[in-house]
Amino acid sequence: MSYNTFGTLFRVTTWGESHGPALGCVVDGTPPRIPLKAEDIQTYLDKRKPGQSRFTTQRREPDEVKILSGTFVSDDTGEEVTTGTPISLMIENVDQRSKDYGDIASKFRPGHADYTYMAKYGIRDYRGGGRSSARETAARVAAGAIARKILSGVTIRGALVQMGPHKIDRGNWSWEETERNPFWCPDSKAATLWEDYLDGVRKSGSSCGAVIELVASGVPAGWGAPIYGKLDSDIAAALMSINAVKGVEIGEGFGAAALTGEENADEIRIGNEGPYFTTNHAGGILGGISSGQDIVARFAVKPTSSILTPRKSITVTGEETEIMTKGRHDPCVGIRAVPVGEAMLACVLADHFLRHRGQNG
Amino acid sequence: MSYNTFGTLFRVTTWGESHGPALGCVVDGTPPRIPLKAEDIQTYLDKRKPGQSRFTTQRREPDEVKILSGTFVSDDTGEEVTTGTPISLMIENVDQRSKDYGDIASKFRPGHADYTYMAKYGIRDYRGGGRSSARETAARVAAGAIARKILSGVTIRGALVQMGPHKIDRGNWSWEETERNPFWCPDSKAATLWEDYLDGVRKSGSSCGAVIELVASGVPAGWGAPIYGKLDSDIAAALMSINAVKGVEIGEGFGAAALTGEENADEIRIGNEGPYFTTNHAGGILGGISSGQDIVARFAVKPTSSILTPRKSITVTGEETEIMTKGRHDPCVGIRAVPVGEAMLACVLADHFLRHRGQNG
Amino acid sequence: MSYNTFGTLFRVTTWGESHGPALGCVVDGTPPRIPLKAEDIQTYLDKRKPGQSRFTTQRREPDEVKILSGTFVSDDTGEEVTTGTPISLMIENVDQRSKDYGDIASKFRPGHADYTYMAKYGIRDYRGGGRSSARETAARVAAGAIARKILSGVTIRGALVQMGPHKIDRGNWSWEETERNPFWCPDSKAATLWEDYLDGVRKSGSSCGAVIELVASGVPAGWGAPIYGKLDSDIAAALMSINAVKGVEIGEGFGAAALTGEENADEIRIGNEGPYFTTNHAGGILGGISSGQDIVARFAVKPTSSILTPRKSITVTGEETEIMTKGRHDPCVGIRAVPVGEAMLACVLADHFLRHRGQNG
Amino acid sequence: MSYNTFGTLFRVTTWGESHGPALGCVVDGTPPRIPLKAEDIQTYLDKRKPGQSRFTTQRREPDEVKILSGTFVSDDTGEEVTTGTPISLMIENVDQRSKDYGDIASKFRPGHADYTYMAKYGIRDYRGGGRSSARETAARVAAGAIARKILSGVTIRGALVQMGPHKIDRGNWSWEETERNPFWCPDSKAATLWEDYLDGVRKSGSSCGAVIELVASGVPAGWGAPIYGKLDSDIAAALMSINAVKGVEIGEGFGAAALTGEENADEIRIGNEGPYFTTNHAGGILGGISSGQDIVARFAVKPTSSILTPRKSITVTGEETEIMTKGRHDPCVGIRAVPVGEAMLACVLADHFLRHRGQNG
Repeated sequence: MSYNTFGTLFRVTTWGESHGPALGCVVDGTPPRIPLKAEDIQTYLDKRKPGQSRFTTQRREPDEVKILSGTFVSDDTGEEVTTGTPISLMIENVDQRSKDYGDIASKFRPGHADYTYMAKYGIRDYRGGGRSSARETAARVAAGAIARKILSGVTIRGALVQMGPHKIDRGNWSWEETERNPFWCPDSKAATLWEDYLDGVRKSGSSCGAVIELVASGVPAGWGAPIYGKLDSDIAAALMSINAVKGVEIGEGFGAAALTGEENADEIRIGNEGPYFTTNHAGGILGGISSGQDIVARFAVKPTSSILTPRKSITVTGEETEIMTKGRHDPCVGIRAVPVGEAMLACVLADHFLRHRGQNG
Repeated sequence: MSYNTFGTLFRVTTWGESHGPALGCVVDGTPPRIPLKAEDIQTYLDKRKPGQSRFTTQRREPDEVKILSGTFVSDDTGEEVTTGTPISLMIENVDQRSKDYGDIASKFRPGHADYTYMAKYGIRDYRGGGRSSARETAARVAAGAIARKILSGVTIRGALVQMGPHKIDRGNWSWEETERNPFWCPDSKAATLWEDYLDGVRKSGSSCGAVIELVASGVPAGWGAPIYGKLDSDIAAALMSINAVKGVEIGEGFGAAALTGEENADEIRIGNEGPYFTTNHAGGILGGISSGQDIVARFAVKPTSSILTPRKSITVTGEETEIMTKGRHDPCVGIRAVPVGEAMLACVLADHFLRHRGQNG
Repeated sequence: MSYNTFGTLFRVTTWGESHGPALGCVVDGTPPRIPLKAEDIQTYLDKRKPGQSRFTTQRREPDEVKILSGTFVSDDTGEEVTTGTPISLMIENVDQRSKDYGDIASKFRPGHADYTYMAKYGIRDYRGGGRSSARETAARVAAGAIARKILSGVTIRGALVQMGPHKIDRGNWSWEETERNPFWCPDSKAATLWEDYLDGVRKSGSSCGAVIELVASGVPAGWGAPIYGKLDSDIAAALMSINAVKGVEIGEGFGAAALTGEENADEIRIGNEGPYFTTNHAGGILGGISSGQDIVARFAVKPTSSILTPRKSITVTGEETEIMTKGRHDPCVGIRAVPVGEAMLACVLADHFLRHRGQNG
Repeated sequence: MSYNTFGTLFRVTTWGESHGPALGCVVDGTPPRIPLKAEDIQTYLDKRKPGQSRFTTQRREPDEVKILSGTFVSDDTGEEVTTGTPISLMIENVDQRSKDYGDIASKFRPGHADYTYMAKYGIRDYRGGGRSSARETAARVAAGAIARKILSGVTIRGALVQMGPHKIDRGNWSWEETERNPFWCPDSKAATLWEDYLDGVRKSGSSCGAVIELVASGVPAGWGAPIYGKLDSDIAAALMSINAVKGVEIGEGFGAAALTGEENADEIRIGNEGPYFTTNHAGGILGGISSGQDIVARFAVKPTSSILTPRKSITVTGEETEIMTKGRHDPCVGIRAVPVGEAMLACVLADHFLRHRGQNG
């Protein structure tokens, strides 16, 4: 993938810094005549929006999206639809509080990209992390909302399946439950326990990581492509490109290493609606191509690097120092990564849908 | 990444089926005047070559590589060097034994891409898996050998750190040891135990998975790029594109989810040779850009799907059946994935080296 | 090139319709620490801005550019510089007069893209031509201004060398003169004659075509690449992508067909500053790679299709009709194409500069 | 376009030097189940093959193509069909006569890419021009034969419309005639005159240029895309990438500059089979999108730079010298460029067909 663009036919280019005037994206290659209003996108942005519970940053970012191009009123239906030309989306930055950046300007925060951006570019927009801020993911969520519109018949959902060291009990899985707690947790018992756990983390000024699981249902068999255009390869790139992600797995994932061939390979049977697999260790992808089963991907998010404990670091001029990141940070950035992961999966699937239709009609 | 090509400036296109006349790759964008002989590539192909111990397939594939273009004798040195034009590499297929494909032609093997290729294309070269065969990885290893030539000062090594459910003891890690046992295992004690374990797996006609760890040392700080061109994003795509891979992680990986921010963020100090990090949970990458530390990536390989136990499946005409995959298969395909993983990491790094030089001089 | 993006390392994505709220571009891959202010870009936009003489459309479009991302104040110099991250530029549309689109909504204008957009997408933003409007070229000019900043030592200039059937006398060529007349004409005598000619065209409600010549001086030998990445190939694509362009040539161009090998091949000699060519029929490019001579490209712009004479056409519902395009149109759209052509050449050269540096150091 | 690859969904990568062991291409993205045998490709290679009349080089290059991957016997039809995986084609070089390269090794030939390749890479395969040889176009012709298979219903033809200064009389146009003379000339009278003319050129050891016209019939309205993915933009890049090409035009081309808006814009009417245009100045493309009319493109080829007259040049070590290019060269390389131009147009159209189907279904 190139610097700030991904996709082959459905293409997303994002831009913007955390504390600049705005951020946004250009979504290119959308099929024409798909109904699209700003509200369709806003719904998903609101899922990601900070400040919705005490467990996410208290910054107030309304994240209101504007559509600047690529839609027009259909003569047939009277509603706004896509025209097939690039859709430019913009979100203005409002709650920046950026007068005083204090230590961030002169010191590198451990676990952040401050040091590496400086090593690469010799300059960095240090305000709120600049381009490396998780605010960039708002643009991904906006693009993902358009991708979902293309994927008629496909349902994409995400859930937090591990917070810090605490995993859910998969026997308790309920998609409805993900909408009822502030963690997108599918296990109501785990959600209750996590509430206490995360309160403790938050009050101590610490942070924790998380694992998110994404499921796409309704993807027909045949999307994806050999060899470097594998569906799982593009999903891995897309998820790994999200801030703070350190691991990606498909289906059984790392667990597959400990299985035998007998345990792992999903058997095939014929049912009323055609072939089906008796299990889904593959996570819906074989040889890089969708099998018609649910596509299952997971990704691991590291603990927020902004914590209240002083940490050893160096200044931009090369002297040893300490730094403590004040400010309003997510104790578990993995929570807000759920809608971001969903969006990235939607974008990859939309692209592969169009690519498949291109090659195979 | 597009179908059968990856990379932006250092670009690799592979082609070929398992039982066709040949397979190969075109490596484009190589800097000029780099010494390159077929033997330089053969060395790495020989590491991947089957039949080197009783633990890999007994097929005899000499995998002899020919350079068909892109090199010329330098007037200055009298040796073959790259010219900057595309390097075409070809490996002829010799030991195909392809008269009788038996069940494979008419049935879908569970865990293989037979079903999905058919769903996508309506036709498949079923001989030895066709394009989805792991033989394709020979072309990657060949390309990786050229990538290494570009990466002067960088050392790329791989090791098997888990076979089936059995992990190494990281306290015993020795790179030298990886060359001494048939598993690329860095822990001599584990290697001895694995020998027994894998003999059992092999004799029972079963198979097991594995986890491979890759380390690139000597990568300077600054390679990689925001946001969708992140170094870890490209590494994830590259490793996930290898046959049978189900998971990829960088540095602490999935383990990062269970850490606190204090534990995970690597602190920075000033040493005699400039800044250094006191730990490497990040795996050498922050914000998608290399930090100057070792780049550490791991990937999980599922157990070989070709096993001697009969498995439930369906025929290409949609009837329920059973299939047992006879033939000469690797009981643990993860072993031969070690040089393949190294090659993919080398290709990604070579591309990012050139891209970084392009943008930043 | 993909839909709305071009370039490999220096990448430009444009968006926006003629009568939407705004248009703009995202410029990605710019090297860091290059001084860049909005005024640097505005200078070039002002060259393209309509309404500067009676010979261009009287629409009032201030075309004021805003930089939304990608720059930051350098601690070293206190001036705004690029950070290496995507630069988002936006130009708001102000003088749209878009209440009444009359015939344009229901009829296809001959010579315009109305019919083909409808054939492709089944919908079109007919207001002012929507995405196919020449207003899109403002975004190109903005991107070109950034490209020029990267090309230190390279001078890129354009001139109108033919208006309608009237060519300049190349013996009168003066680059200074291009700044003195409203046509970017390098021949003062021709400019005077063109004034009368174009007054006649304008008053009769007709229009005429033009040929523009671009010259890039200071490009070192070695930029460009075989085979499909040839410098002239990328220049041809870039110029042909400009609205209304129907032909592109390099150096001697179509005239080369009538020359002999003796006349056409430029001889080489050694001068005080190294090798030089005694002529430049090649237009500074041999085998797709720059030779160190001036790069010379020309492109032909068709006459504006919006004219006051009624023309036969059909309605969107398939009935025969006539249409006359009222409104404020350029009688010779080729005039305003001069800064656009310069910008496209600058973008291509900037990309090839970075690509060359990537591969060759 | 990147170095040695072009196309988005239908992708062609070529490799090989003039006097290396072989050359070839990898064609990726072909739809599956299209009948394809080596003979289908050979037919077009034979059109380009040298030595077919006294007017082309007398080198004997059988140019026999081998399909190394990407096809398989269909169970349904028993014939070889594409599988959707990359098709690797190889042509072995046989008549190289490469013992003595004489002056070419130590001197730069005027009009050739010798100097610029050396400036870029610091090394060049001087044997027969290496990578910059027109032999590379054999691989394009092979790829074009596959592209044609995808374009069912589309006819692509080419003709030489100008040789040296001598143009055809368009009133005499006959496609059948192009098969009857050694020039692909559609005007039998012109062909007779050209025979004498070219004999003179050949005997004097000189050379001449040419203009080729390409026509694609049967392309439906709607292929192509705004803005940088315009059909004409991709055609321009594809044709300009052919060796020795110095100009490209679409429809009226450079002639459009001298027309008025009334003359140039094609009017639209309704006929029995739907909308049609009364003229085709546009060359079948409006706004970068096909209109359903014939697509008409022309390109200019410079005179062969290899001539028998001694020319001033320099040595690779920087001394002034003279060079005379002996050997068996085409006096008018434009003749053999006809099938090459057809092939490039076919490849661009095949790619846009798939891209259109991807976005628009």
